[in-house]
Amino acid sequence: MPDNHDLSLYLQVADGVVESIRRGVLQAGDRLPSVRHAARNRNVSINTVLAAYRNLEDRGVIEARPQSGYYVRARLPEVNKVVMPVTPVSSPKLEVLDLIDMVFAAQQNPKFTDISLACPVGEEFYPAKKLSRILNQLLRSRPNMIGTYSLPPGSLRLRQQIARRTPLLGMSLSADDIILTHGCLEALQLALRAVTKLGDCVGLESPTYFYMISMVAMLGLNAVEIPTDSQHGISVDAVEALLKEKKIDALMLMPSVQNPLGCSMPIESRQRLAKLINQYQVPMIEDGLYSELQFSGDLLPAVKAFDKDGWVIFCTSFTKTLAADFRIGWMSGGRYAEKLRRLKALSSMSEPTILAETLGQFLTTGGYDHHLRGLRKRYAFQMQEARGLIARYFPQGTRATQPSGGFVLWVELPLNVDGVKLFHAALAEHISLTPGMLFSPNGRYANAFRLSYCPT
Amino acid sequence: MPDNHDLSLYLQVADGVVESIRRGVLQAGDRLPSVRHAARNRNVSINTVLAAYRNLEDRGVIEARPQSGYYVRARLPEVNKVVMPVTPVSSPKLEVLDLIDMVFAAQQNPKFTDISLACPVGEEFYPAKKLSRILNQLLRSRPNMIGTYSLPPGSLRLRQQIARRTPLLGMSLSADDIILTHGCLEALQLALRAVTKLGDCVGLESPTYFYMISMVAMLGLNAVEIPTDSQHGISVDAVEALLKEKKIDALMLMPSVQNPLGCSMPIESRQRLAKLINQYQVPMIEDGLYSELQFSGDLLPAVKAFDKDGWVIFCTSFTKTLAADFRIGWMSGGRYAEKLRRLKALSSMSEPTILAETLGQFLTTGGYDHHLRGLRKRYAFQMQEARGLIARYFPQGTRATQPSGGFVLWVELPLNVDGVKLFHAALAEHISLTPGMLFSPNGRYANAFRLSYCPT
Repeated sequence: MPDNHDLSLYLQVADGVVESIRRGVLQAGDRLPSVRHAARNRNVSINTVLAAYRNLEDRGVIEARPQSGYYVRARLPEVNKVVMPVTPVSSPKLEVLDLIDMVFAAQQNPKFTDISLACPVGEEFYPAKKLSRILNQLLRSRPNMIGTYSLPPGSLRLRQQIARRTPLLGMSLSADDIILTHGCLEALQLALRAVTKLGDCVGLESPTYFYMISMVAMLGLNAVEIPTDSQHGISVDAVEALLKEKKIDALMLMPSVQNPLGCSMPIESRQRLAKLINQYQVPMIEDGLYSELQFSGDLLPAVKAFDKDGWVIFCTSFTKTLAADFRIGWMSGGRYAEKLRRLKALSSMSEPTILAETLGQFLTTGGYDHHLRGLRKRYAFQMQEARGLIARYFPQGTRATQPSGGFVLWVELPLNVDGVKLFHAALAEHISLTPGMLFSPNGRYANAFRLSYCPT
Repeated sequence: MPDNHDLSLYLQVADGVVESIRRGVLQAGDRLPSVRHAARNRNVSINTVLAAYRNLEDRGVIEARPQSGYYVRARLPEVNKVVMPVTPVSSPKLEVLDLIDMVFAAQQNPKFTDISLACPVGEEFYPAKKLSRILNQLLRSRPNMIGTYSLPPGSLRLRQQIARRTPLLGMSLSADDIILTHGCLEALQLALRAVTKLGDCVGLESPTYFYMISMVAMLGLNAVEIPTDSQHGISVDAVEALLKEKKIDALMLMPSVQNPLGCSMPIESRQRLAKLINQYQVPMIEDGLYSELQFSGDLLPAVKAFDKDGWVIFCTSFTKTLAADFRIGWMSGGRYAEKLRRLKALSSMSEPTILAETLGQFLTTGGYDHHLRGLRKRYAFQMQEARGLIARYFPQGTRATQPSGGFVLWVELPLNVDGVKLFHAALAEHISLTPGMLFSPNGRYANAFRLSYCPT
């Protein structure tokens, strides 16, 4: 292993190889230039190339074949397409919450290696120092804040800053449109309560975030699993069929960087989806939690950006990007805005002004975009690392997503693997992962699991 | 007006007079000792007695009669007993929320004199400096906290400290029994969702906290108004009749320092109520928000203290006593504990660890009991002041409660006064108050309003 001085150099060489593979210059099975050749070509020492190749080997990008050299490894196959009947209505079971409780318990046990939590931990991923400084300044400059009852609509500064950023997602909201919530989860929950009544059918991506399924169950609603492609997101054809047949009363979807698949819908699909929703006048709850963690290109516009008559409720939070502990999220309610404002006030009143103002101040002066760029780069790198390790160590036949952002992978193991057994076996080894069946109201995906590649 | 040096002396004299009135030594209409006589008797200057008498006059406790001296004023009559049919079931209207919105808006307008908000503002009422110091220390000693996702059940230290204090209210809960919530409001809301289903009838005190009524409406439940005495609280006879006739599916009550009446149920009534609830197996949600602000004597035990089989869900918060902005409350769910734990996690996950730990640390070392004693004394004093001013300036026939704690008075004006008109007239004068009709699902109490005597 080279010393610190050489660190950036050998990583540069390694990244150059990765870039060549991405561009297709080097393909699966191709032989890499010899160490000596590469060193001469790139004008670096042999040791540097060796370190780079070992790093690529560790990441599962290349493999050494004895007496022969280094070769580009076969890439991980994409996960299977979801095949299912068109309208599998189901009343999800709350018992799966037992399993979720075990996942949560393991996550909090410091003895466990946690690859289940969809949230990074640590200073590298959050601007904790800057936020601390702002919070501390606020405590000093406005000493009465702790003793002042926080009433809706809450911090104007934060709502203004949020509104200012909405064009990045194709929306143009004003501070008055923003309802602050206790994380994205509360926003989703309030939205679901606002647009449904007992027994309604809610269309969900399959697989989808397990808490969405439990929320649907808790509210006495039915879930409708809708086929979702691991690259292009939900099947808009399937949505259209369901709308036409009046089989769904609401939709709750993650069009950008979906959890767990990491897929993002193409713009045309978003436009078509928005049009359908407005045509059939069926409300859609849009979870934009990971939108800002899209790895490359301009951020995709929200479906809400194409929402003519206010049928889309957009929900998101700063929990995954800025301050996990603050649990400050927000929603924009379209035609349900007034109802949601009241539901929020009646459910939990407001968010702590001290935390909201801290975020508002950070968004004003803290360099949020710079911070986001750093996060995206880091997660994109770690995603490749994780995929490499899976390609190297997981059994033949393993498939994995290539997420468009965020920090989770969806991994499908060979069909004979029982995900719940694997979960328990992993727990016994002090490893916490999230079993795939949690992501379907019908217990599909028994051989899959979600893996978080943000180190904790 | 005496200078600062004499301040405590003249207040001592004034308080001595108030004490004599309380004990009945001096009664309404009695003449006070002459200034000269009092000064000699108490060994203070004539100026001090004059200042004391003027203060008592300002507070409406005594009145000067020309050429004759000072007399104890007639005391404010108690508010009227609630007379109503036994089971007035009603689906409360959400339109009253428009009025509540106007109250909230006025509360936030700095141009307004706010006598409507049931929450004090300012450093004198909250240990903001100590809390700031603790928070700041936590930010420094645990820099990763902001970036760490807060999972249920949340801060162990806070839950331990809460549990440690529960014997003061006759309970003996452990840290595991405590579910942290986003203020008392979320606790009440979750409890209501946990124990009811669409169309259920919920028994409420009459009058009761307006948000309880709106919450019942929002969840599609019916309200049953139960007569409540302004001194002894809810009529347990009426509750028993309703239980016997299966007219209520749940109760949501404030046995201690009820909002808005300020009444507290005697211990025997609490025991009887707990017994009835257990006998009829009907869940009761106990709002203990103001329990710790009881003016005198040992704190009354919660109804939960007598709850044999876990039918009582106890809910409270630190919002009114310690840190208004933090919005950290808690609940203990009895037989509904597991359901509530999940409902909380699915509704808004958890509370910010940084705020929970700050409270936990304050409860450990900050002198919470000392702080509470100060609050109680101050509020008791201000209550007498407010009653005095009402006795002096409000129209003949005005009645007001003599609350057992907290910081609100319930004021009944002569029957011909229209409370909503008064509310709007007051708004026009930049005064915000809370109209009485908000406190009844049937729009009773049109001539009453709630007045907060905590200065803001």
